[in-house]
Amino acid sequence: MRTFVLYTRGKTDSGFKLEDLPSAGRIDLICRCITSALFLSYKMRKGNRIFVVLNGPPRPPVTLCFNENSNFYPDERSIALVIKKLLSLEFDKEWKEFENSLVSKRSFQEIIRELNGNFYVLHEKGKDLNEVEIRENPVFVLGDNKGIPKNDEKIVLRRGEKISLGKESYLSSSCISILNWICDRKGIS
Amino acid sequence: MRTFVLYTRGKTDSGFKLEDLPSAGRIDLICRCITSALFLSYKMRKGNRIFVVLNGPPRPPVTLCFNENSNFYPDERSIALVIKKLLSLEFDKEWKEFENSLVSKRSFQEIIRELNGNFYVLHEKGKDLNEVEIRENPVFVLGDNKGIPKNDEKIVLRRGEKISLGKESYLSSSCISILNWICDRKGIS
Repeated sequence: MRTFVLYTRGKTDSGFKLEDLPSAGRIDLICRCITSALFLSYKMRKGNRIFVVLNGPPRPPVTLCFNENSNFYPDERSIALVIKKLLSLEFDKEWKEFENSLVSKRSFQEIIRELNGNFYVLHEKGKDLNEVEIRENPVFVLGDNKGIPKNDEKIVLRRGEKISLGKESYLSSSCISILNWICDRKGIS
Repeated sequence: MRTFVLYTRGKTDSGFKLEDLPSAGRIDLICRCITSALFLSYKMRKGNRIFVVLNGPPRPPVTLCFNENSNFYPDERSIALVIKKLLSLEFDKEWKEFENSLVSKRSFQEIIRELNGNFYVLHEKGKDLNEVEIRENPVFVLGDNKGIPKNDEKIVLRRGEKISLGKESYLSSSCISILNWICDRKGIS
């Protein structure tokens, strides 16, 4: 199974405006990452999932989880509507479900501790991808446009390493597309 | 200069609804492709441009052109607003400009004939990328979810070759992210 974990500043209640996703803690960026993680042309990827940790106001943290069975179109607005729906449910630490997408009050560190697999933190200053062997059951951990706070990054690095796609600082959604492609080429799932 | 040409069924007037971009000939897909072609995290890519040919109703064809000087945020809605604005201008074959983005009544074949560079058509059944040398001034030609009509593809293949990123049929926006990354790694611009 290929897993992505995205650390974000996304808003944690359902009151954000569909007409202004960037102001809601970059929910536009989050939606594009979900699309990149889960969609092929005309079908969902089998065996992929993405956890999105929202750390924005008013009640951080909240974690969302989407996978091949989640039910939405690949456009930002459709995915944002599902995020709104999830955030409007009543939930605590236990996962609550809406059409195979999940929501919980779990934090980034709790998610990282619960996951099994081989951890890779994406960072411009990491080890170049060519020098790293990506192993089965990869867990790719990425930040939004503002990155992952040092303390949280440290927790992941106890269990894995920092890797880099190159000198450029790419869009998180582009990183996910590239990582999926690299894993496809190498037959890593 | 790195150039992308995207053949689409996007609507050719400004009357489409921002609340339903997928129904407007997949303008959501078009917006994500523009983001993948032009954006790095926090800045625009220098020396990249993307032509988007709209072949949907009511007055096909229309071609849009965006580059590093185009003025928008990377979210679908912001880009769709610029597309709406361009389509609301009065224009014929001559390029008309709005904030450094362009619109014209040129067709896919006209755009291909006018461009210089090394042409590559993206297609699942093309030659595997590992067996192809991507040369300077690449022009990557892609279709939307429904692909490029045979007749139009033929025109490009007179000047280039068909290449493949692998067996999977990837989202057009993912293809663009991957191609940009490959060119960055190889220092091709």
